[in-house]
Amino acid sequence: MIKILKENERIDDLQINNYKIIQNKKGFCFGIDSVILANFACDIKNNANVVDLGTGTGIIGFLLLAKKNIKKITGIEIQEEVADMANRSIELNNLKNKFNIINCDVKNILKYIPRDSCDVVISNPPYKKINTGRKSCDEKNLISRHEVMADIFDFIKASKEILKDKGTLYLVHRPERLSDIMYALKTNKIEPKKIQFVYSKINSEEAKLVLIKAVKNGGQFSKVIAPLYIYKENGEYTDDILKIYNK
Amino acid sequence: MIKILKENERIDDLQINNYKIIQNKKGFCFGIDSVILANFACDIKNNANVVDLGTGTGIIGFLLLAKKNIKKITGIEIQEEVADMANRSIELNNLKNKFNIINCDVKNILKYIPRDSCDVVISNPPYKKINTGRKSCDEKNLISRHEVMADIFDFIKASKEILKDKGTLYLVHRPERLSDIMYALKTNKIEPKKIQFVYSKINSEEAKLVLIKAVKNGGQFSKVIAPLYIYKENGEYTDDILKIYNK
Repeated sequence: MIKILKENERIDDLQINNYKIIQNKKGFCFGIDSVILANFACDIKNNANVVDLGTGTGIIGFLLLAKKNIKKITGIEIQEEVADMANRSIELNNLKNKFNIINCDVKNILKYIPRDSCDVVISNPPYKKINTGRKSCDEKNLISRHEVMADIFDFIKASKEILKDKGTLYLVHRPERLSDIMYALKTNKIEPKKIQFVYSKINSEEAKLVLIKAVKNGGQFSKVIAPLYIYKENGEYTDDILKIYNK
Repeated sequence: MIKILKENERIDDLQINNYKIIQNKKGFCFGIDSVILANFACDIKNNANVVDLGTGTGIIGFLLLAKKNIKKITGIEIQEEVADMANRSIELNNLKNKFNIINCDVKNILKYIPRDSCDVVISNPPYKKINTGRKSCDEKNLISRHEVMADIFDFIKASKEILKDKGTLYLVHRPERLSDIMYALKTNKIEPKKIQFVYSKINSEEAKLVLIKAVKNGGQFSKVIAPLYIYKENGEYTDDILKIYNK
């Protein structure tokens, strides 16, 4: 078990299906956004062929495999070390027959995934535009959080390329980028169908995340469902979040 | 007082500044969306030159004039009879020096309003795409509710044409059209800055209205503020709504 870890890495228990995940203590560790996104995608159909764009440590793939009857999931990750870490987590969980990682840039997706072949694309992409916000000093962190290598347009264009007609895209992002996201979806003919805003607390002044379900060549009408709150006023998780964590 | 009314019309008290409004009992009467929109625009700067696109009975203009220090408001209304009704309400309230109505199509706005001349555009446009939803059987109602004469792209294009650089657009619409609205804003370089979703009740499954503040040639980042709820579970107005109605 020890040999599977490299410097600064640790194994965390996902507390579902006995799955474990390797993360780098100094790198980008998964957050509640990935957990919420995997839950938001709970209407994925059985036997779906899924691609996770910007898979990172593979967290979304492990959660989907634990919760849903997925045929196959492919994680796309541009950072070689991070892709390697995800691969070792897949081995650790004996999921090589279901989950594979491709170390490539989303902009080159068609070299690896056939056009119009996927039922579902899911993505928790880097949120921040280049040259905005506090920069993570570590380069790996920077690529995970900022649009250094690819921006939201690249992620959505890649989704369009690999999704089947009527295939579904699930996305988590920041509300501050809503306008860019909606524009990118529209220009790629992926129509938002269900949108949910996530607030830290019930009295938060603004939403911190947006979840979007969109369908390639789908009809034009979207609905904005009830907001999701993460914490109660006393700082504990809300019942909705505890349910997502199966507590 | 009687002569100011035509067939099927009545005078309603707006319960603010002693303002009255003439409405047609068989036509489109103003709803809570106009009241909420006028309140959402509460950050309009003093002495603003405002245009209300699709002004209807003039409700938004009267509410803004009651609440804010507006220099001048121009209401654009395509339906001659409705424009005439708004004009008679303006007379009734002695507001001819502040509020005028132009009976024209928003698509011809530049014939009447100079390009790049307005500080603020506000609009509660028809919500429904042609050939969708229940049709109002009355033609005036149809034009008020459905995009028969002009669609959301026309309203947003007109806004871009008449707004000054950094001028503000305030809009209320249906969340089901969010994708069309965001796309139209983006292509017209009007950037959403503040977005609020309105739910009927706290446990409503989906939002019924969206309020958008957007700025011509504004920066790219938007925020989604806390949702607004109209009714408490017992069916009474929430405190937020009572405050808007000055109760």
